[in-house]
Amino acid sequence: MHQDYFEHDVIVVGGGHSGSEAAAAAANMGADTLLITMKLADIGQMSCNPAIGGIGKGHIAREIDALGGIMGKATDRAGIQFRMLNKSKGPAVWGPRAQCGRRAYARAIRQELEAIDNLKMRSDMVKEILTDDAGETVTGVRTNLGKEFRAPCVVLTTGTFSNGVIHVGEQNFGGGRIGESASHGITGCLHDLGFESGRLKTGTPPRVDGRSIDYSVMEKQPGDPDATAFSFLTDDLPSVEAQLSCWLTDTTPETHEVLRTGFDRSPMFTGALDADGPRYCPSIEDKIDRFSEKDHHQLFIEPEGRDTHEVYVNGFSSSLPEEVQFEALRTVPGMEEAHMHRPGYAIEYDFFPPYQIEYSLETKYVDGLFFAGQINGTTGYEEAAAQGIMAGINAVQKLRQADPIVLKRSEAYIGVLIDDLVAKGTDEPYRMFTSRAEHRILLRQDNADQRLTELGHKLGLASKERLDRTREKERAIDVTRETLSDTTVSPQQVDDYLQSVGTSTLNQPRPVIELCKRPEVDSEDLLRHAGLYDEVVTEAPGMLSAPRLIEIDLKYEGYIDRQKDMVEEMEEKERWPIPDDFDYHALDNISIEARQKLSKVEPDNLGQASRVPGVRASDISVLMVLLKNEG
Amino acid sequence: MHQDYFEHDVIVVGGGHSGSEAAAAAANMGADTLLITMKLADIGQMSCNPAIGGIGKGHIAREIDALGGIMGKATDRAGIQFRMLNKSKGPAVWGPRAQCGRRAYARAIRQELEAIDNLKMRSDMVKEILTDDAGETVTGVRTNLGKEFRAPCVVLTTGTFSNGVIHVGEQNFGGGRIGESASHGITGCLHDLGFESGRLKTGTPPRVDGRSIDYSVMEKQPGDPDATAFSFLTDDLPSVEAQLSCWLTDTTPETHEVLRTGFDRSPMFTGALDADGPRYCPSIEDKIDRFSEKDHHQLFIEPEGRDTHEVYVNGFSSSLPEEVQFEALRTVPGMEEAHMHRPGYAIEYDFFPPYQIEYSLETKYVDGLFFAGQINGTTGYEEAAAQGIMAGINAVQKLRQADPIVLKRSEAYIGVLIDDLVAKGTDEPYRMFTSRAEHRILLRQDNADQRLTELGHKLGLASKERLDRTREKERAIDVTRETLSDTTVSPQQVDDYLQSVGTSTLNQPRPVIELCKRPEVDSEDLLRHAGLYDEVVTEAPGMLSAPRLIEIDLKYEGYIDRQKDMVEEMEEKERWPIPDDFDYHALDNISIEARQKLSKVEPDNLGQASRVPGVRASDISVLMVLLKNEG
Ligand SMILES: Cc1cc2nc3c(=O)[nH]c(=O)nc-3n(C[C@H](O)[C@H](O)[C@H](O)COP(=O)(O)OP(=O)(O)OC[C@H]3O[C@@H](n4cnc5c(N)ncnc54)[C@H](O)[C@@H]3O)c2cc1C
Ligand SMILES: Cc1cc2nc3c(=O)[nH]c(=O)nc-3n(C[C@H](O)[C@H](O)[C@H](O)COP(=O)(O)OP(=O)(O)OC[C@H]3O[C@@H](n4cnc5c(N)ncnc54)[C@H](O)[C@@H]3O)c2cc1C
Repeated sequence: MHQDYFEHDVIVVGGGHSGSEAAAAAANMGADTLLITMKLADIGQMSCNPAIGGIGKGHIAREIDALGGIMGKATDRAGIQFRMLNKSKGPAVWGPRAQCGRRAYARAIRQELEAIDNLKMRSDMVKEILTDDAGETVTGVRTNLGKEFRAPCVVLTTGTFSNGVIHVGEQNFGGGRIGESASHGITGCLHDLGFESGRLKTGTPPRVDGRSIDYSVMEKQPGDPDATAFSFLTDDLPSVEAQLSCWLTDTTPETHEVLRTGFDRSPMFTGALDADGPRYCPSIEDKIDRFSEKDHHQLFIEPEGRDTHEVYVNGFSSSLPEEVQFEALRTVPGMEEAHMHRPGYAIEYDFFPPYQIEYSLETKYVDGLFFAGQINGTTGYEEAAAQGIMAGINAVQKLRQADPIVLKRSEAYIGVLIDDLVAKGTDEPYRMFTSRAEHRILLRQDNADQRLTELGHKLGLASKERLDRTREKERAIDVTRETLSDTTVSPQQVDDYLQSVGTSTLNQPRPVIELCKRPEVDSEDLLRHAGLYDEVVTEAPGMLSAPRLIEIDLKYEGYIDRQKDMVEEMEEKERWPIPDDFDYHALDNISIEARQKLSKVEPDNLGQASRVPGVRASDISVLMVLLKNEG
Repeated sequence: MHQDYFEHDVIVVGGGHSGSEAAAAAANMGADTLLITMKLADIGQMSCNPAIGGIGKGHIAREIDALGGIMGKATDRAGIQFRMLNKSKGPAVWGPRAQCGRRAYARAIRQELEAIDNLKMRSDMVKEILTDDAGETVTGVRTNLGKEFRAPCVVLTTGTFSNGVIHVGEQNFGGGRIGESASHGITGCLHDLGFESGRLKTGTPPRVDGRSIDYSVMEKQPGDPDATAFSFLTDDLPSVEAQLSCWLTDTTPETHEVLRTGFDRSPMFTGALDADGPRYCPSIEDKIDRFSEKDHHQLFIEPEGRDTHEVYVNGFSSSLPEEVQFEALRTVPGMEEAHMHRPGYAIEYDFFPPYQIEYSLETKYVDGLFFAGQINGTTGYEEAAAQGIMAGINAVQKLRQADPIVLKRSEAYIGVLIDDLVAKGTDEPYRMFTSRAEHRILLRQDNADQRLTELGHKLGLASKERLDRTREKERAIDVTRETLSDTTVSPQQVDDYLQSVGTSTLNQPRPVIELCKRPEVDSEDLLRHAGLYDEVVTEAPGMLSAPRLIEIDLKYEGYIDRQKDMVEEMEEKERWPIPDDFDYHALDNISIEARQKLSKVEPDNLGQASRVPGVRASDISVLMVLLKNEG
């Protein structure tokens, strides 16, 4: 028997966003990796919105790239429109977003994966997780084709497919996405191994034939001239002219009226579907129900690719009966003649509440078994991919008998995400927001490489080229910053410019760097205006210039220092480990709620304990005293 | 209610090769057409070999194009290697073949469909065929989403999906293709309407990671410098250098030995799968079983696209247990390290024996319901597409209350295909061969446009541009031929050339046209050599020059005339209609077999009756006398 076909170091189950990153990371780190997914042609398929990034999510995508992941490169290749969201706010919360060709994105992911040497693929459905007799250590998987594939590490990323049920009005049927089968077997098998599962739901809007839309009554939303790429390796993007536009329109009171006629047949309202859905991605019926005072909601009409006229009606997610969706859609300005390719629908699926995983994403009950992506209760491609890359990394760390890599909340949104999941759990699909990151001023999308690429490289994941670019960027920033401190400008050189942006003029020469701190000043413009740009700037690789990068730091200087103090305080707490067998029930001077929650979550240290919902500052103080006495 | 969403002129069920052509034809002819298929992203998916054309099949593909279909254009766009097969034989049986990018082909088909104005699409599964209360006239379909779509004509093209069951070794499970669900419901519904169904099977080889193959020990098979395009609208193809190569290798005695170890677990040999399969596309186990004296079989390693390393192992179709396939594959030179993406498998599915359809492809039992493609018992993309285009045409003819379009056996391979199906039926998957066409000398791939484009245009299907090109081609042939007849060449002009190709030299000037008839002579070369080319040739649009086209006619002149006589004789018979209610059982002077077969098939005329298997010439004579007396 040729063992190399049936035996691997790491098996990744599922070729969605999570599985693709997991497989890429494990294989790039040198593990002989097998990716098993239902259909190879569906690798990297976007289940819903054909877009990557946005606020919070864009940060994650940049972090995945900084570590050496594939999402960013695929996005840059498949992007048809690039924007930077939240530009009116501070740069910490700017979020890059790319509209992607759906087909192009899947193709780009497939190509990224095919370019990795020791990554093998298999088209098949996993039916069973195999373990040793005790059910304590994973040994492999059994598939629909009846074959057993063995590996000491298995990463499970089956998304919305586990016992997926699709709902449209009163109709429902099994499916993982429309037109794709659900997958069965795994949940039962995990129950036998001691896991608990829950149900969640999510929804998607109708797809529409773009030829049937009247764009002339909609507002055009073109790409953004100063959008940046997703990958730190990308040097340019298609010009705004070469990008496609999205279109804005609104629902009307009539739309809402029509939608309401279907409420009595909506699975959400009849109770046919009572799993929890993503509060922040509500269906249109949820929106008109919850915000009944609003007489319109904005819709984004988004192209699905350069090679198709299909469009995505962002904001119109629904599981109302099809004829209701259809009639309602036709009351939206510009959609009077719309032809739907298919209605919106809701899907409910199994997930595994994430108190059952470690920070490494390895499960607590079965050694070598990792969970990543939507099955941990998240929603979104970026959230899934982030867990995927970390699970892939930690599977290999385990093979190497090295410590798991756990990103801190102060280091990355990915750290926030995983910490939130593990420490707080979730009872609705979890998605990232910048507000979830208390250290968000440190965690900018523009500095993800400075935060993470060195680590990625040390792990054998980020390439030498990536590391070199990061170092070169850092050097460019340092050198330029020093030059800017040493350079003064005269009133003649800059007053015109200062006046034009509405800030006070100079009465004597000043160091440039001081001017760059002023909120009104755009440092690139200032330097160009003063005729100094070429002289003082050392160019940084990538899509942001050194002055732009420095300016962000300068403007945040005060906050950043304060943040760093907070981080230290928190890290102090993280350095207080809590023993594995710590008996919270024996503590009668902490609240009952804290006792219960802490027993369930089993935090590794005081920092994590402090973030478990229901645990109060007073509980933590008690714990700290106790641990001090013990330690 | 907006009726335009739920009511259409023609509904096509299934977006495979047959459904795509049917929908394109109906919509291009002006019908408001709805294409319903399980998943829009799978439109135009090649289930098996990523190639179009070949001997016989290439003819069909060209005919579909000539009529105004989409297969040829998509093939030219997606082709990665073009060849002309059978070049060593006469030009009547030359067969164009293109290796295509699997993803690129599906994308090209989707784009062709999206470019058609009144074609709408829907992603959904049809569960039920709706009829009037009497079950005699189709009224629409009901889908998985519980919706009813109405149309007076419904074309059913569900391929291998109806109750599809996939087999690999002793494993089997439902599926329409691997990773795709089977479709259920339609067969039962057709049984209720009085249809009979049968089971057929087909198989596919493993997919392999091309990076794991050692091509250095294989024979390279590059593209062909004088291959022609599939569409008569295409003017050039990528250069041979820009095309990809296929690779040849062979199974070995060891391969066969390993394969035999799995015979006791093969669904073919254990009887688990006893539907009939395509005799001419046998599985590798069939081949070594039937041809046990052969110690090797040729395998073609074919690329799946420019953007993937996946390859298709043509010739290694199998449903043996996966480990047997795997070990056997690894005994093939160059495949010692091969990694399979998935094993080969066999699939069995429902089909509807085609005595239940008319020549128009409309069913005999339900008015307005058409069957096309694999569900009529054929195999192959081209065979499916051919039926699709004819069903689409005839659905619209029906709406127009016009006569159905039935191509004659002497007019097109498509005519042969449909006549064979309807008149002879099939009990194994039917595929086209040139030998099935008794008039094959008339039915060349190079003259499909001359045979069919005028008809296509008259129907409103072939574009004006297409017709103009055909007319221009015909004119170029006529003018050039006349010039060639009027031009003489001297021995000095051509003797060198004649000698070089090994035919006798001249002793006096002769008309060029005479030389062109000689089998050794390549007319283009001759004219170039004589310095006459530019002077005597009127260029034809498309990829074949006027002299090349004329030469083919010249070389076949004798045969062509004889063929034309035969055709007339046959057509004479076709002009003898047989009344609908003709009672064959009442004839006791024809054979019992003939009585039974003819009653089942109910041929429209004497010509068709003569082709029903089991009907003898003597039976036909009796019938003719009878009809003469009656008429
Ligand atoms: C209808 C719908 C609407 C959504 N709406 C939103 C939204 O509005 N906003 C948002 O942020 N996110 C939304 N999402 C969620 C987003 O698509 C997911 O969060 C993301 O795709 C999860 O990635 P994943 O890798 O975890 O799983 P998926 O992308 O679901 O990928 C799972 C993969 O695993 C494979 N697989 C499953 N089971 C098996 C098995 N047993 N064996 C082998 N392979 C298997 C599947 O074929 C698939 O390739 C929606 C998802 C769906 C389906
Ligand atoms: C495993 C396999 C091996 C094959 N091997 C060969 C070979 O070696 N040589 C050869 O010449 N041919 C082979 N074929 C056959 C070839 O693929 C088919 O002949 C050809 O694809 C038939 O085209 P079609 O349009 O009739 O059906 P298909 O291409 O099967 O398309 C059917 C379409 O209908 C859709 N559909 C099905 N049911 C429903 C429904 N209820 N509602 C809505 N949509 C529906 C499907 O999603 C699909 O899009 C093979 C096929 C398979 C599956």
